Amino acid sequence: MKHSIKIKRALFSVSDKSGVEALARALHQNGCQIISTGGTKSVLEKAGIPVTEISEVTGNPEAFGGRMKTISFQIESALLFDREKDADEARQLGIEPIDMVVCNLYPFERVKNQGVDFDTLIENIDIGGPTMVRAAAKNFKYVAVVTDPQDYPDLVTELQDNDGALSYETRFRLMRKAFNLTADYDAMIATAMDETAGHLSVRLAFDRAKTLRYGENAHQQAFFLRQRHAPYSLHDLEFLHGKELSYNNIVDLYSALDAVKDLSKTACAIIKHNNPCGLCEGNDQRQVFELAWAGDPVSAFGSIIAFNKKVERSTVEFLHLDAENKMQRKFVEVIAAPDFAPEAIEYLKKHKNLRLVRFEPKRVTQEKEFKILAGSLLLQTSDNTLLKEKETVTQHETEVDDDLLNFGLLAVRQLKSNAIAVVRKKDNYLQLLGMGCGQPNRVNSTRLALERSRENLKNEFTGEDAQRERYIKEQMEKAVLVSDAFFPFPDNVEIAASYGIKTIVQPGGSIRDKSVIEKCNELGIAMVFTGLRHFKH
Amino acid sequence: MKHSIKIKRALFSVSDKSGVEALARALHQNGCQIISTGGTKSVLEKAGIPVTEISEVTGNPEAFGGRMKTISFQIESALLFDREKDADEARQLGIEPIDMVVCNLYPFERVKNQGVDFDTLIENIDIGGPTMVRAAAKNFKYVAVVTDPQDYPDLVTELQDNDGALSYETRFRLMRKAFNLTADYDAMIATAMDETAGHLSVRLAFDRAKTLRYGENAHQQAFFLRQRHAPYSLHDLEFLHGKELSYNNIVDLYSALDAVKDLSKTACAIIKHNNPCGLCEGNDQRQVFELAWAGDPVSAFGSIIAFNKKVERSTVEFLHLDAENKMQRKFVEVIAAPDFAPEAIEYLKKHKNLRLVRFEPKRVTQEKEFKILAGSLLLQTSDNTLLKEKETVTQHETEVDDDLLNFGLLAVRQLKSNAIAVVRKKDNYLQLLGMGCGQPNRVNSTRLALERSRENLKNEFTGEDAQRERYIKEQMEKAVLVSDAFFPFPDNVEIAASYGIKTIVQPGGSIRDKSVIEKCNELGIAMVFTGLRHFKH
Repeated sequence: MKHSIKIKRALFSVSDKSGVEALARALHQNGCQIISTGGTKSVLEKAGIPVTEISEVTGNPEAFGGRMKTISFQIESALLFDREKDADEARQLGIEPIDMVVCNLYPFERVKNQGVDFDTLIENIDIGGPTMVRAAAKNFKYVAVVTDPQDYPDLVTELQDNDGALSYETRFRLMRKAFNLTADYDAMIATAMDETAGHLSVRLAFDRAKTLRYGENAHQQAFFLRQRHAPYSLHDLEFLHGKELSYNNIVDLYSALDAVKDLSKTACAIIKHNNPCGLCEGNDQRQVFELAWAGDPVSAFGSIIAFNKKVERSTVEFLHLDAENKMQRKFVEVIAAPDFAPEAIEYLKKHKNLRLVRFEPKRVTQEKEFKILAGSLLLQTSDNTLLKEKETVTQHETEVDDDLLNFGLLAVRQLKSNAIAVVRKKDNYLQLLGMGCGQPNRVNSTRLALERSRENLKNEFTGEDAQRERYIKEQMEKAVLVSDAFFPFPDNVEIAASYGIKTIVQPGGSIRDKSVIEKCNELGIAMVFTGLRHFKH
Repeated sequence: MKHSIKIKRALFSVSDKSGVEALARALHQNGCQIISTGGTKSVLEKAGIPVTEISEVTGNPEAFGGRMKTISFQIESALLFDREKDADEARQLGIEPIDMVVCNLYPFERVKNQGVDFDTLIENIDIGGPTMVRAAAKNFKYVAVVTDPQDYPDLVTELQDNDGALSYETRFRLMRKAFNLTADYDAMIATAMDETAGHLSVRLAFDRAKTLRYGENAHQQAFFLRQRHAPYSLHDLEFLHGKELSYNNIVDLYSALDAVKDLSKTACAIIKHNNPCGLCEGNDQRQVFELAWAGDPVSAFGSIIAFNKKVERSTVEFLHLDAENKMQRKFVEVIAAPDFAPEAIEYLKKHKNLRLVRFEPKRVTQEKEFKILAGSLLLQTSDNTLLKEKETVTQHETEVDDDLLNFGLLAVRQLKSNAIAVVRKKDNYLQLLGMGCGQPNRVNSTRLALERSRENLKNEFTGEDAQRERYIKEQMEKAVLVSDAFFPFPDNVEIAASYGIKTIVQPGGSIRDKSVIEKCNELGIAMVFTGLRHFKH
């Protein structure tokens, strides 16, 4: 039977007392008896609500500095007995049902974050609260368990609309919330106690699952959940337009946001298969978008794009979505930004296959990263450091600015290892000119990045054919080649030189650094060591 | 004060009764009073141990079909009161201390896995047990809380060696275990209740943390943990020799094991930057190793290697670790296998920078995969399906065997997208001849895989120079090019043809399939559609 239950007797014992009077008043007005413990009782009585002291029900005093307040045969029986099967037994034992528990627990987490001493921390482990809450939750068929002040307004409404009764659905929902609360609570305690003993343990909880159409591939099922209590989550993204996001969209969206989150001027990242194939930072957003796109104008089709500033209509008109010649239309999968101008939305919404997402890129910043592999967890602090030191190790000094160098490091950090990024400054715009990534051999990545760069320069040159190679040479000389890890051999330097590169940035640290530096000196290349590797697998 | 506590009064109430007599006897022999509930009491009395019925302590009967057995002001006070501050108050209230709780909880998980009805599931939510356990744990300064039968033998020893007392360290350890138990218990309940309501929630817990030297890079801290209660875990790997595994070693080790786990004959995978650059399956392990190595003999240096069968000495002698000419020595980072012949270990152990790991590859098989991104979780079923259908869509039929085709699909599934694998059969060995992966553009991957294949064939040919191209042509014609996703344009087919490929396998499903197939027909290529994409990001 899934019927409503009239709340005739309610037990209040709350640590967080906010808003508790309103709920008690609604119950009282519907003829409910309120039982309460010390502090809560004072608050309710001050609000003019008659309260029965809990010791009148238990027959026991509040004892041991508050460690014993509610736990008793009387209270837990009143919560737990089966109103049908056990009715006679309850009557014989003088147990009168309690139909509602309003309880929230000692603030263990807050107290812990205050850095209190161990004894105080232990004192803030609630025993009576979870007992009541769990007992009431187990017997939710007859009992309502209220653990979150945010639920009070809805409950007040439901009570007033139903003569002081609550529905089965409400009680079921409250029960789920209660067990999730006690699970979270003991997770915190267990983790804190392990920590005190010098043992790291990790407990993660996720809910609000959205079912995705499928996973990485159509034969895989997939779900997208939010981490409980996380202040920020990618799950909070605001979906403005289009078909629902796919699993791969979400993965790439994260990478896109991650790529622009640390850039301060207007920036745009273009992601394909989880790597940025375009990245640019500068002043004019349209220009930034065009230069990001030019990083790999073929792969950019079907990409996932993120901006770090409000997107203007003039920016996205670069997609030419209305072009009569369909070949001129640039199809992309997702555009994400902290905001969109209404005219930009209007323009983009005309295209149903384009997904628009509002999300602040900075909110993907994380202190820790988690990788779950076959029943194990790799936990690491995130790679949030960009530059440790900067040392020119060659005879030649580089002429490139620090801002370009930093941009190059940021670009290469986003690429899967082995990673090479070629970046340049063009009229105060910082641009990823070409990238190579995900290769078992660094030489592959170097070749891919340089070939891409050369191809892009070729396409960009609009002058006379005879001048093209000269233009490419000039641009390559102003560019910087950045490597995510050290060069194991001088071969990468030779390849870079063959494409006209004059500045190379890498962490250094190889046993063959000397021969790598010598090769640079021989070929007139400036090399900067950063001391900081940026592997990403 | 971190002193020992003599256990003078213990409360037993266990659901799992295994081994409980031994602990009770050790206590009894040291003069401890045993209090117990119904079922546990019978077991102990049968074993000749005198037991006080709990109702004599509480003054209450066992009530409501067992829902109320232990919860009472008397029991929880006896567990919770501060033996120093609250001693007088306890005496006045007639509360005598209980120094130990032995309790394990109703088997909620087991009952749930039996698929019982909802009411039975609810009945198996333990209320009294967690109350006692949590109260005893909170007061661990004076009370020992025993929740795991596996701890009984050590406790018996400690009690016998210390006149029935337990140390602070033991009580602290038991307390941590207790809160981890109640956290797990409520996590299960919360998840099950959410599931009943049609809401997916996920709770993951990890412990046994090992501190790694650093994370993906030296400026990142990292830890390696085991999932609690997982039947298998990569964390269980048996480390036989060498420097400790690094973060990146573990990530690559997983990929190496994953690449060989589904191969039935002897197999070897060589991983570099998380992608297999070598993979082979066949009969003779040495031959398998050599052919895997030949997939990318340059990148294989510094790789992570997995075998799916016991490793023989003759196999690893291929590394020539004792070669006088140091250039002939093949340095690799990690070798993992389900087992090693003692002679193989003896040979490998001479090299201190080589790490040896014993682990059964099949144990990395997972039903579900988790990806945690910025406060969110992507959960998907793993890509464990290899072939849905097999349809030749071209005029030409392929002449390659199914086993090669399946091997190619398995290879490409392990590679980061976009992925292309070129595989061939050589004297009944299945070999990854070349791969391209991690590229924003499929054409890049196709070129990388074919160029690698051609290079490998060139190196392998030992005949007269004039015959080399002919040999390469013959081998390419027998090889299969496998793509993890459909070809968006016919350009990949043209590139494949230019390298002499005659068989292409891909899922199909592009809007331009027709023009791709036409291009195959025009170029004399057989194309097989599988209907199954294998993206991996």
